[in-house]
Amino acid sequence: MREEALHALFRNAFPKRRGLTGPGDDCATLRPPKGSLLVQSVDQLVEGVHLLPTAGPSAMARKLLRRSLSDLAAAGAKPWAVQWTVAAPTEKGGAWMRALMHAFLKEAKVWDVPVIGGDLSTAPHVVLTCTVMGLARKAPVGRGGARSGDSIWVTGKLGGAVESGRHRLPHPRLAEGRRLLEKYTPHAMMDLSDGLMADLPRILRASEVGATVYGESVPCNTKASLASAVAEGEDYELLVVLAPRQARRASSDALLQKVGWTEIGVIEKRKGLRWKLDGTLWKPQVKPWGHTW
Amino acid sequence: MREEALHALFRNAFPKRRGLTGPGDDCATLRPPKGSLLVQSVDQLVEGVHLLPTAGPSAMARKLLRRSLSDLAAAGAKPWAVQWTVAAPTEKGGAWMRALMHAFLKEAKVWDVPVIGGDLSTAPHVVLTCTVMGLARKAPVGRGGARSGDSIWVTGKLGGAVESGRHRLPHPRLAEGRRLLEKYTPHAMMDLSDGLMADLPRILRASEVGATVYGESVPCNTKASLASAVAEGEDYELLVVLAPRQARRASSDALLQKVGWTEIGVIEKRKGLRWKLDGTLWKPQVKPWGHTW
Repeated sequence: MREEALHALFRNAFPKRRGLTGPGDDCATLRPPKGSLLVQSVDQLVEGVHLLPTAGPSAMARKLLRRSLSDLAAAGAKPWAVQWTVAAPTEKGGAWMRALMHAFLKEAKVWDVPVIGGDLSTAPHVVLTCTVMGLARKAPVGRGGARSGDSIWVTGKLGGAVESGRHRLPHPRLAEGRRLLEKYTPHAMMDLSDGLMADLPRILRASEVGATVYGESVPCNTKASLASAVAEGEDYELLVVLAPRQARRASSDALLQKVGWTEIGVIEKRKGLRWKLDGTLWKPQVKPWGHTW
Repeated sequence: MREEALHALFRNAFPKRRGLTGPGDDCATLRPPKGSLLVQSVDQLVEGVHLLPTAGPSAMARKLLRRSLSDLAAAGAKPWAVQWTVAAPTEKGGAWMRALMHAFLKEAKVWDVPVIGGDLSTAPHVVLTCTVMGLARKAPVGRGGARSGDSIWVTGKLGGAVESGRHRLPHPRLAEGRRLLEKYTPHAMMDLSDGLMADLPRILRASEVGATVYGESVPCNTKASLASAVAEGEDYELLVVLAPRQARRASSDALLQKVGWTEIGVIEKRKGLRWKLDGTLWKPQVKPWGHTW
């Protein structure tokens, strides 16, 4: 199968959208609508790292896009356009490649986000990347605004994403992220891709504050241990820091309550992350998620 | 070396720029200046495919960015921001990773393009990607506007990029691409990454026209054969289609003449790409560059 035929697939699938041009030229062009802010994020999916080698091309394509969309959710943005890259061995064959392409296009349609471009290369191993562009009505809140006295919230339930297989098809909290950004002005917001133990300290460092998290408050998935809920990644739930008044307002939000909306801790002046379980200090006996070079 | 330290490197290197936020949050934000069009392209660099495994991290980082900038050149756009991804085996080690990161940051500084974000992952093999965003004063011309009677031009000289080692450090024709877009309104423009034999047909198909190219007119690099000049990739020169009047005006442009500016053929109604050498039909005995699945 010639590369040209694969390109044609994407040119033909491109839906006409105001302000966007599609695949076919060296560059795509983007004209964000007035009053909208363009936000952008990039993510990777490596065969054997983010999915088992036994995962088929369709599972890879779906997880790839959903993980990236989760970053837009954390920015409170609406998906607008996507660009991707595929590096794969020619030995995978044409059927595999077509299945990957069709699955990505299908998933992009599910989330109503046009594929504006991409790049394809041979490689000894499958590495996919996905760049998502979103439109936000307000500037994303980022990680640096948490203040002492704020409360810490999470959407949904945590833990066991890998063991249960949930990590294969995460559900980006897009509607929830937009609701939070537009209505409750969070002081910090991010998606939980590496787990509370790794991700919360990122907010604390960026905001130059500390926190206490109450283990008994952490919402755990069925069959997931508390250790897994605080230390494992791949949940793709939102981690949100709110001022007390906004937290009270958000606590009764029906959209948030529908997916689960739980207060798990408090931001404090004293730096570092402390854990409590039923009133006493607790130290999760697990290593945080992550890579080392 | 913890991933966090690598992230800090990029946060600290980010230069303050109007309309851009840098690394550190889930998404970067972009606010293109009024009157500018945002253009975007993504490219990959795979160890062993686009550079020999013996190429060091610095060579990889430099080629990665320059290849992507060449796409902006073809769109007549000015580089504005860049986002990249790194997938690499942990066995490469911290020194390799630091060298890669520093080289990419240094190269980005050379081209005055802030690194607004990225992603890092372990993988069994090195795959790098680079997404460049540029600002254009006019909509890029793309590939679909060539008309019968237009003439075909190239910047610089072609051929022998791999053998000579030039492919390791391509020179994106940014100033030339902008000059062409803004002053001579090309009917089609692209960069020669896969060679004339593979790239010109892309313009012809998109424009639903044909062409004759005159072999004796093709500007060859020293030591490069004509076959290599028409069939090999990695030149990263601009391939430009101009209306006769614009071609006459552009022919004396000092900026274009400085890097080399040569008419090599003519667009015709009859579809397909024909080659002539000293007045007789000629068929380059080479396979076009490209991948097959």
